[in-house]
Amino acid sequence: MTKQQLFEQIQKKRSFLCVGLDSSLDKIPKHLLKYENPILEFNKQIIDATKDLCVAYKPNTAFYECYGKKGWETLIDTWNYIPKDIFSIADAKRGDIGNTSAMYAQTFFDESSSGMSFDSVTVAPYMGIDSVKPFLTFKNKWVILLALTSNEGHADFQLQEIGGERLFEKVIKTSSAWASDEQMMYVVGATRGASFADVRKLAPNNFLLVPGVGAQGGDLKEVCKYGLNAKCGLLINSSRGIIYASNGEDFAERAREEALKLQQEMEGILTEVGLV
Amino acid sequence: MTKQQLFEQIQKKRSFLCVGLDSSLDKIPKHLLKYENPILEFNKQIIDATKDLCVAYKPNTAFYECYGKKGWETLIDTWNYIPKDIFSIADAKRGDIGNTSAMYAQTFFDESSSGMSFDSVTVAPYMGIDSVKPFLTFKNKWVILLALTSNEGHADFQLQEIGGERLFEKVIKTSSAWASDEQMMYVVGATRGASFADVRKLAPNNFLLVPGVGAQGGDLKEVCKYGLNAKCGLLINSSRGIIYASNGEDFAERAREEALKLQQEMEGILTEVGLV
Repeated sequence: MTKQQLFEQIQKKRSFLCVGLDSSLDKIPKHLLKYENPILEFNKQIIDATKDLCVAYKPNTAFYECYGKKGWETLIDTWNYIPKDIFSIADAKRGDIGNTSAMYAQTFFDESSSGMSFDSVTVAPYMGIDSVKPFLTFKNKWVILLALTSNEGHADFQLQEIGGERLFEKVIKTSSAWASDEQMMYVVGATRGASFADVRKLAPNNFLLVPGVGAQGGDLKEVCKYGLNAKCGLLINSSRGIIYASNGEDFAERAREEALKLQQEMEGILTEVGLV
Repeated sequence: MTKQQLFEQIQKKRSFLCVGLDSSLDKIPKHLLKYENPILEFNKQIIDATKDLCVAYKPNTAFYECYGKKGWETLIDTWNYIPKDIFSIADAKRGDIGNTSAMYAQTFFDESSSGMSFDSVTVAPYMGIDSVKPFLTFKNKWVILLALTSNEGHADFQLQEIGGERLFEKVIKTSSAWASDEQMMYVVGATRGASFADVRKLAPNNFLLVPGVGAQGGDLKEVCKYGLNAKCGLLINSSRGIIYASNGEDFAERAREEALKLQQEMEGILTEVGLV
């Protein structure tokens, strides 16, 4: 998917919501356990209930891998079920030496090899240029590079100062030479709203994938205040706050209600800044 | 596996060799393509031919994931085939927020969930403490944290100075508070032999996993000069130099010859320093 196509979806749906499919056997409603593949059934019902309200789905690969072969099959089937006009993100946080990153790119982008072809994959920056570049050889596919994450441990290294800038700023600055904003996004956690001003100095035009709204405590308005740009430039992820809104038979309806609340809030913001 | 058990294997086999199973359909001998699962057959023959000469096997997960469901099955079957007195490394370079890293730990350490229980997994440090800690809750299982890698891009961030030390040194120093040398190893690339002196100042007792000997140009003697400690403290990985020594019918024999050369060189070094 191109940047322009993504922006058009955002305008059409009046939403920049990404639904995170962190689907776990011990958290999904018990009545689904009777299905041959409970997690796939859960994901399908969540997708059916929210697909008109969001512009992206983000399965977190850990939640599938942990069930071995069966889990990997569920990941592939989930990718297949995501409508192709919705931006798909393999939240995999991969990254290795060049020849190995090329295999990871094949994993997530080459359907003829792995059975999946996501629009994007999250990548960890620690190993530098050749760990990222192989993902960029796929046309209209995206790297979403970890910059400033929303978790407790983000301060250990990401906030450390290197010659007057923090590591996450160094990561953005350095990596912006590797790809344009037509192929590179950054992960920037919602739990530090004011940091978006710093990020936007370095990455004015890139889309930012923003986890941490909801369960992790991030504030949507604060993020938008500093993070929005002329093409919206934000994908706001909510996982647990939507998919686990209820663990009863009404889970899909309740997920839709939570997604709708966010979509309406987003529509208000997009209207206010004149993007729709 | 405990540190002491690993050291005993090293003394018994007079080797600290790790064989990297970066097994790829387009590189394995053509005559194996007639098998139902060519890569599994390749791995089995490589393991049979080298298991008395090495103390560790390291499948690189990218080379399995890229074939989707079938690849994941091959990874599990390969883990099953590795003798249980040989240290197994899932070279996965994972790392995410706490609840997600817990799922990755389940993937690689909990056989009842995923079908695999490796002794260790490689982890990327960028997300800090809570991305690493969940792996440490498994008894006698190891985190092998990326410190100084052997690839071109290592200079982009790992060598950047933070308050008088380089990022890889900061990673080692900070993470050494998270786990003892009974559960934490570091990846340190062989292509920068003299850096081992710097690493040993910060991690005198930890095992180091050392890629880059062979195809990537690292020198075994140089690494040992600076890197050996009282319990050996080194696992030297060779992947392509061993497993692709030949792509003919003699591939397993030739892999054994290459492994034997390294084992004999290691035996000489261990003897010289009085560890065997």
